[in-house]
Order: sequence, then structure tokens, then C-alpha cells
Amino acid sequence: MNTNNDTIVAIATPPGQGAIGIVRLSGPSAGEIARSLFHSSRPGFTDFKPYQLHHGQLRDGRGNFLDEVLAAFMPGPGSFTGEDVVELQCHGGGAILRRVVEECLAGGARLAEAGEFSKRAFLNTRMDLTQAEAIMELVGAPTAVAVGLAGSKLEGLLAHRIGQLRAGLESVRVQLCVAVDFPEDEVECLAPQDLARDIAEIREAMAELADNYDRGRCWRDGALVVLAGQVNAGKSSLMNAILGINRAIVTDIPGTTRDYLEESVQIDGLPVRLVDTAGLRAALDSVELLGIERSRELLARADLVLLVIDSELGPGAEDLDLAAETENLLVVANKMDLVAGEPAWTRESPWKDKELCRLCAKHGQGVSGLLAAIRRMVAATGAPEAGTLVPNLRQHTALVRAAEELAHLLDELAAGLPYDILSVRLDTACAILAEITGEITSEEVLRAVFDGFCIGK
Amino acid sequence: MNTNNDTIVAIATPPGQGAIGIVRLSGPSAGEIARSLFHSSRPGFTDFKPYQLHHGQLRDGRGNFLDEVLAAFMPGPGSFTGEDVVELQCHGGGAILRRVVEECLAGGARLAEAGEFSKRAFLNTRMDLTQAEAIMELVGAPTAVAVGLAGSKLEGLLAHRIGQLRAGLESVRVQLCVAVDFPEDEVECLAPQDLARDIAEIREAMAELADNYDRGRCWRDGALVVLAGQVNAGKSSLMNAILGINRAIVTDIPGTTRDYLEESVQIDGLPVRLVDTAGLRAALDSVELLGIERSRELLARADLVLLVIDSELGPGAEDLDLAAETENLLVVANKMDLVAGEPAWTRESPWKDKELCRLCAKHGQGVSGLLAAIRRMVAATGAPEAGTLVPNLRQHTALVRAAEELAHLLDELAAGLPYDILSVRLDTACAILAEITGEITSEEVLRAVFDGFCIGK
Repeated sequence: MNTNNDTIVAIATPPGQGAIGIVRLSGPSAGEIARSLFHSSRPGFTDFKPYQLHHGQLRDGRGNFLDEVLAAFMPGPGSFTGEDVVELQCHGGGAILRRVVEECLAGGARLAEAGEFSKRAFLNTRMDLTQAEAIMELVGAPTAVAVGLAGSKLEGLLAHRIGQLRAGLESVRVQLCVAVDFPEDEVECLAPQDLARDIAEIREAMAELADNYDRGRCWRDGALVVLAGQVNAGKSSLMNAILGINRAIVTDIPGTTRDYLEESVQIDGLPVRLVDTAGLRAALDSVELLGIERSRELLARADLVLLVIDSELGPGAEDLDLAAETENLLVVANKMDLVAGEPAWTRESPWKDKELCRLCAKHGQGVSGLLAAIRRMVAATGAPEAGTLVPNLRQHTALVRAAEELAHLLDELAAGLPYDILSVRLDTACAILAEITGEITSEEVLRAVFDGFCIGK
Repeated sequence: MNTNNDTIVAIATPPGQGAIGIVRLSGPSAGEIARSLFHSSRPGFTDFKPYQLHHGQLRDGRGNFLDEVLAAFMPGPGSFTGEDVVELQCHGGGAILRRVVEECLAGGARLAEAGEFSKRAFLNTRMDLTQAEAIMELVGAPTAVAVGLAGSKLEGLLAHRIGQLRAGLESVRVQLCVAVDFPEDEVECLAPQDLARDIAEIREAMAELADNYDRGRCWRDGALVVLAGQVNAGKSSLMNAILGINRAIVTDIPGTTRDYLEESVQIDGLPVRLVDTAGLRAALDSVELLGIERSRELLARADLVLLVIDSELGPGAEDLDLAAETENLLVVANKMDLVAGEPAWTRESPWKDKELCRLCAKHGQGVSGLLAAIRRMVAATGAPEAGTLVPNLRQHTALVRAAEELAHLLDELAAGLPYDILSVRLDTACAILAEITGEITSEEVLRAVFDGFCIGK
């Protein structure tokens, strides 16, 4: 159990305006601070009955009315953080919620740091690290599919799977220990080939789980599709044409810097971030170098590059360079209305070997074909089924490391190394799995996980 | 009591990402719909105990995990709307909350219209019309002062004051009725001069309350300050200089169209919307007419126009026109660093009779003096004290109309018109007051009030 002597407070609902906004307190003084502000509308009210919604008013120290609220007291350990928690359901406006937070601060609370509520929940064993990460993922999930992927982990299914893998390794370790401790005895222990088979099975299961990262990443975080090509090839028209047939499902990504044009669309439930580097170049004319660097960085990160080429004018030198450098390339032969039939350049090298879509962005012909091609090239498989466990990057990296340890172990086993040396590898693999769920962890890992949260979570 | 047979659902928290998001149901099937989705984490759970927070999971019709939630059931009439209400406290992400709403729709709820929760609360007499309007005002309040002004009305103090005024009028009406019904009897009734005194007192109280609108409006909604002047007079530099010394308190106004530059700042707690029409003109070069029209409309609505003039170059013909047309004008003599002493043109007509601030926006000199001048010119008095009742425009208009009826009544009383004719005026004034609190109301007024709310409120 974590020992926090201080009480933290923050606005728990999204910023902006809504009917309801929540101020949340956690820590030993949560109840006391809330009691000092809360005036029940029920005659005879003496104290917060736990887990009950209490209707009343919040008033500041001088008795001034702040808001009409519902207050709930959840004593630790039966609360989100495992500490005493109070939720004050206020009206959902920025200034009123800030006023309420100020009064809580005046009452002795301190402003929570980013992710501090979730971190306390983790440290008080109210959830494991994969569940804490799943909250972040769920909150940011762009689509119903992504909601499902995050939900499985929030439910604890990933932690459960990791537990199974660890249990498998532990059982192998017991076999090794028995063999080491009682080498001469007639204790029944596994033959090397049986040990190898068990370890290989576990290694494979790990690798398979790790691979889900690549298969599921685009469905969870969205695929990055970057538009490139010469100035008048029609990139902006293409962007508009795609948004035009996706009108209803365009969403804004908050916090995006707008020095390049970025829009989000869904293609069959696959979230796709479309970035037009044209905006980047135009906006950064005077700082051209910076612009080029950012373009390069975007192109390098892209899941797919759409190289837009004017069908009539054909590709330029820059287009050739890009085609040579880029693996995930889809050539878009735009303005097909200006050319009768297949443009000649598409039959030449290197274009004849590339994936190519002919369309006319201006009039919208061929755009749905392009979307289908994007969908096919970015996500080879369909949406992951409900219940599929898709690890995040941190979890993926750990799984890969653990699988590598087992691969080494298998080599060493084959080379006939003594069991007590082999068991070190097993210990390492187990420790790596424990890192994923946070059973073994470092301040560094915790910082990396919880600093990504925002204040109030 | 209102009879709604349908159950409405909406996201009640602001859009965006946060730790907590709430989906709210109201209507006869609220409990049933929630029960079909909710799976308690407590063994032996059979039903929602009212006003209690229940921990569990939401699962869709196929049993798929949606989210881990706290659910609360508030049976009517003891709920916000007066109907059965369920609040589902989910994690605060757009896609997850939409998924939960979708499942509620599948369960038989329909999406709430804008303001429908509050409208039901009003129709079920859970609050009067001034309190419903106060919720909107509280949610949108930009500053702590504005929070306080909205809070007084949410608390019911405005409705109480209106009730006092109505009671005064009723007591006068009783006197009139007695005089009308028993003209010959020896019943003791007020002499006309006493009646006139009572009516005049009430009229004055009404007018005073109505006047608070003008005195408090800027503190509640923010003052509109528009920057005007020639292209190179330094409007953008001035905007930046003001924002520079107000850095910490700049807030974005959501939903603002950005075809002109607008920023919000606070000056001594006074919310000020700064609009630079320069952006408007630049952006709308090709549709110049529209741009000019919007500029004119902004200038007409402005609480204060800052006319920025280059100290060295002096005013141009357009500046003279604007100075002639505009009443609330503050002349800003910018670039004072380029001129030794007072610029000659400031001593000429019409400039010598105008309020004038000398400053250098580029280097920041004189900007705090400008802020003080803005503050003084926009809001002659300090922030309204806690508890001051500031009516909104609808309430203000009604108060003015009611006060006018009483003014007519006083004229007619002085002219010796018969009491039964006078009593019609009194009835009208009473009815107008009843409109403010919604005791007498029309579908038209309700639409005007609640259509301004957003969905979920």
C-alpha cells in the first residue's frame, strides 16, 4: 500500500462546456475538505454516507454560493485510487470548475500532477499497469474498434494472458530447479527435448502476442497516410475529395499543430490520419530547411505515402527520387479526365511495378477505389475481432525481449549448457513479463507511463 | 407534471478527452435500459438502489465489454429532470461515450434534443426559468465574477426577488379590487396618493433591477473591444503586446470562426474579447463587401473601439470618418518612440477632444496604461458584489416592459381614471413578471430559452 499523506484535486471531466463537470479529490483529507464546502439540501444531514449521491450546494469560505452539486464519498480502499475519494458533480463550465478546485486548494488539497490519480490507483494495487495504460488508450480511442481493443485490456485480459505465460515459465523453472538441486536423485524431471518443447511453445505464444502489435496498431492508433507530389498535381483536391465522401466521420485531432494540413477519416472503421505536406512547405517558405526536415520525418513515419502525379504532365525528378526511397508507396495518377486511356508513363519503369490508382480528384471519379486500396495496403487484415489483445509499444518491446531470452535459452539448451545457467535466462524472461503488468517496475517506467496521462486522470 | 413517455439519452460532460465522461438517461425506461447494459461487480446485486454509486461493467447486447463504470439511478421526482434518471460514469473519451449512447439507443432511448434535460426539469417544476437560464450562464461563465453572478440566479435569488415584486403588485391589486367592489362602503382603502406611492416604489425597484443588466453585462458576458485603424498602424503588434502581459489568462473561445482575429483577456477580472478587424479584411480580400459589412457590424456592437493611429504619420481620412461615426472611441497613438513629445495632430480637432493613449506596442511601453483606460471606459463601476442580481437580456426586457406598464398606470391614476381600468395595467405587469420565472409562459419563450442550450444539458 502506498502512503500518501497529501490530498490531490483536479477537474476529472474534459475541458470545455457541458451539462456536468466533475472535480475529484483523493487522499486522507478528501472527505474533510468536501465537508467544509458542502451544504446538504437534506435536513438532518450530518455526514457523507459512502457511495451515495448527496444533493446540496457548494459554498466558499465566506459563505458565497458556488454551485448546486451532487457529491459522493468513496472511502479507501474501495475507490478508484484506493484512497478516500470525493467526486463533486458540478455544472460543466471552465470557470466554475476552476473556482471549486481553488476552494479545495484553499482547504488544503494540492493540484494533482498528470496521471497522479491513476498512478495512485496502480500503487495501491487497484489495477495493474496494463489496465492503467488501457484507460489512456480507451479515452483516446478514435473508433469503436479501438474502444474494443482498449476495453479488453481494461478488463484485465492482457494481464491475465501475461500471467498465463509467466505461469508457464515458472513451471519450467521448477523443473530446472529440481534438476539442479537434486541432480543425483531419482526425481522425475523433464528430458531436455521435453523442456525445449515447452519453452518453444511459450516463446511462440509470446511472439504471437507481440506480433498483434503490428497487426492491430493501425486499428488502434490510426494509420498515417502522407500525401506527396508536385505543387500542381492536385494534392489539395484529393484531400477534399476524400473528405467529401467521408464527410460525416471527419474528426478533429485535438492538440495538433496546424503547420501542415491534417484530417482524420475512417475507412471501413479503420482510422486514417491524412497529412498533406503541401501545407507544410507553403507555410514554412522562409524556413524551408525546417519544412523539408519535417516532411522527411513524416514520410519516414508514414504507413503509406500517396504520391500524387498529374496524369498528363507525368512524374518529375522529385517524384522519381521519392519512388526510389519509399517502400510503402501508392501512386495516384490524378486528372485522368485529361488523358485518354492509360497514361504512357505508367507503363515505364519504375512506375509499372508500383501500386497505382487512376482517378480524377476534381470530379471525384475513382476516389472510392483509392480508399479501398489505402485500406488494403495499410491493414492487410480486417479489424481485429473483439477480444484480440493488442499490446502497446512498451508491452510489445517487453514481449519481444522476453521471447529473445527464450530463444537464447533454447540455443543454450541445445548446446548442453548446465541447467543453473539456463535458469538465469528464465528468471530474466519472467522479470520482463512482470514489468509489463508492473509487478516488477522502476520509477523510470512509471514516469514514462503516467507522464503521458493528463491532469485529472 | 409533464408527461413524457420517451426516454432521452445524451453525453452530459464536455466533448474531448478526460478521466471521466457521463452518459445520462432520463425518462420512464431509463432504469430498464441501464439494467440491460450494466453488470455489477458486487455478487448478489439485483437492482439499482436509488442515489447509490454502483460499480460494474457495461456490456453490449452481444456481451462485449464496453467500459468499467459507476452507475447511479435517481428515481423521479427526486432527480434533475423530475423523471427517472440514470447516470453512467464512464471513461471520458469521445468514441467510448458514443458507443455507450449507441447501446442506449438500441435499448429504446432516443437522442436528447438541445436543452431537453433542462426543459424537462423546468416542465416538471424542478426549477424555474431563471434557474434554467442560470445553468447556461454558469457553464459559459468566463471568470470567477461571472460564476458568482450566475450562481446567485441558480440559487433562486432572482426568482425570489421577482416574487417579492409580484407580491407587492398583488397587494396593490387587492386594494384596487376592494375599492372597485365596495365603492360605497365604509371599507378602509388607500387614498390615490398612497396607491401612487406604493406603485412608484415597486416601479423603481423594477427599473433598478433592470438597470443591473447594463451595469453587469460586461462582467458577465465580457466586453467587446474592437481594434480598428490603418494597415500599418500596428494593430497586430498591439494585440500581441496586450496578450503578452496577459499571457496566463488568455483563453480560447470555442466555436469562434477564425475569419477575424479574436482573443480573450481579463483586465482586473473583467472579461474582454479583443477583435482585430485587420484579419477580417486580409482574409476576405476577394469578398471585400462581405468583409466590410462584418467589420461594420462588429464596430456597431463594440463596447469600445480602439482606433490605432501611427503617431508619426498621423490619422488618415478613414480614421476621421470612424472618429466621427463612433461614440465609444479610444484613440491609441502608437509608435510613440518615433515622435518626440506629443504628436502635433493630437492637439487638433477632433482628436484633442477624444480619449487618447500614447504607447509603443512594439516595445510594450504604455500598454498597461491602455488596459487601465479600457477597463475604466468599458465598466465604469467595479465588479458587481457577490449577490448582485444581473438579469439577462430576456429578463431585462420583461422588467423594462413591466416598469413601463406601471409608469402608464401612474399617469392614468393621476388623470383620475377609474380603478377597474387601472387594474388591467396591474394584471399585465404581474403577468410579465410571471413570464420571467416561467409561471406563465409560451411555447415560443421556451423554445427561445432552451434551444440555446446544447445537447446533453
